[in-house]
Amino acid sequence: MGQDHPDSHLFPHATGAAAKMVQEHQQEAPLKLYAGWFCPFVQRVLLVLLEKKIPFQYIEVNPYHKPASLLSLNPRGLVPTLEYAGKPLYESTVVCEFLEDAYPAPMRLLPSDPYERARARIWIDFVTSRIIPAFHRFLQYQPKSEDDEGLSRVREEFLDKLRQFTEAMDPKGPFFLGEEVSLVDLGIAPWALRLWVFDHFKGGVRIPQGKIWERWERWLSAIESRESVVNTTSEKEHYVPIYKRYADDTAMSELAKATREGKGVP
Amino acid sequence: MGQDHPDSHLFPHATGAAAKMVQEHQQEAPLKLYAGWFCPFVQRVLLVLLEKKIPFQYIEVNPYHKPASLLSLNPRGLVPTLEYAGKPLYESTVVCEFLEDAYPAPMRLLPSDPYERARARIWIDFVTSRIIPAFHRFLQYQPKSEDDEGLSRVREEFLDKLRQFTEAMDPKGPFFLGEEVSLVDLGIAPWALRLWVFDHFKGGVRIPQGKIWERWERWLSAIESRESVVNTTSEKEHYVPIYKRYADDTAMSELAKATREGKGVP
Repeated sequence: MGQDHPDSHLFPHATGAAAKMVQEHQQEAPLKLYAGWFCPFVQRVLLVLLEKKIPFQYIEVNPYHKPASLLSLNPRGLVPTLEYAGKPLYESTVVCEFLEDAYPAPMRLLPSDPYERARARIWIDFVTSRIIPAFHRFLQYQPKSEDDEGLSRVREEFLDKLRQFTEAMDPKGPFFLGEEVSLVDLGIAPWALRLWVFDHFKGGVRIPQGKIWERWERWLSAIESRESVVNTTSEKEHYVPIYKRYADDTAMSELAKATREGKGVP
Repeated sequence: MGQDHPDSHLFPHATGAAAKMVQEHQQEAPLKLYAGWFCPFVQRVLLVLLEKKIPFQYIEVNPYHKPASLLSLNPRGLVPTLEYAGKPLYESTVVCEFLEDAYPAPMRLLPSDPYERARARIWIDFVTSRIIPAFHRFLQYQPKSEDDEGLSRVREEFLDKLRQFTEAMDPKGPFFLGEEVSLVDLGIAPWALRLWVFDHFKGGVRIPQGKIWERWERWLSAIESRESVVNTTSEKEHYVPIYKRYADDTAMSELAKATREGKGVP
């Protein structure tokens, strides 16, 4: 795509707590994660790796100069791509379930009961197929005038998805399934942590008052202070120019383009 | 939606071999499947139930007069909905994995190795997120003139997805993963069995010549003759008026509407 690509000037590496985490995962290891420091789908996988204390090597990918080692594993060159025993795995939800299957110790991130496990998968799927597309329709919406009702509509649609998700939470919590963190929490966390982008660019998410939203805020506090979350988050100032491209609807990522065409997560 | 809804005159029950299967699953059972005889997502679940010889009760749902028992389980009233120990499960891929987890005997439909299992999930996801949307974009495409190139384009896009899927198959087969049938085969089977709709309405799928397409045809023969597939298929004449609504792009199902809006599987 060359140097003149509009997305090509993005900041090149993790910062803050995430930079320290990256530094600690530079050593050669058989399990390799091809990553982008700003990518929420990569963060999903990182959260699982850190929660389960799985040894891995972090490889930062410049999306406009992709390494041959990545392209030989995954011709589309997308991140996250996991290299396991020399073989590729991709699709963040599939990679997360793989890590849960292949590294059962020291903790489980899905319930052992088949029904509860299936219910968790329904809500992970809800994040991917409902919440993320609604997040991007809201973020990439371009008001046509100052009193454009469309912005309120995409905001309400996004809030409605968050409300449905919150209503399905264990009432006590603090996490989605109860006291313990699970793949449901880690699957939505990267987007929940990025809600500030709406304050920055779209007049706020405007979380309403009410009991259900107290439950949401309690969940959010629990996830925001989670060590794995803190250690996979860079400094906000470096996310801003990247999300500005989304907010201006000029980003060229696969997800940005799919959203522009009215489609879901590609 | 009332009697005048354009989709409301559909044939009310399974026919042919599928009628016999339905008849054999009328008895009260703790595991209940709320079904529609024509629905490919329901067929996915039925294939798993039959392959694994799981006892279940089949409940045909009239989509315009949904039973209260279904609505109390799943307020959206969508089929397939599975009732297990009085609790609901939905989303066909989640339900299929649930049945695999909860009923391990007499056969496994996913590999036991975590990497191979993850790879199978990548291709099940490819069916849902790539093949089914391409199937519907092709089926619902409305040519604007006699020499409309758009129809060729949506046909080529659909064939490209089938080609990618076929290239990922075990070379020997006959099934996707090798000698044994798996959730990958059962996950795509309902759409593979319905390819005749393109002959009927859109000038054919026009499978090209070549080695990769021989592999596709060999897979298709193996799946078409599978007992579970035969026993979940109704007489073609009763599918025709239903698929005519899709081909005319006047169908009102959630999937038909999502396709019309340029979206994926809702």
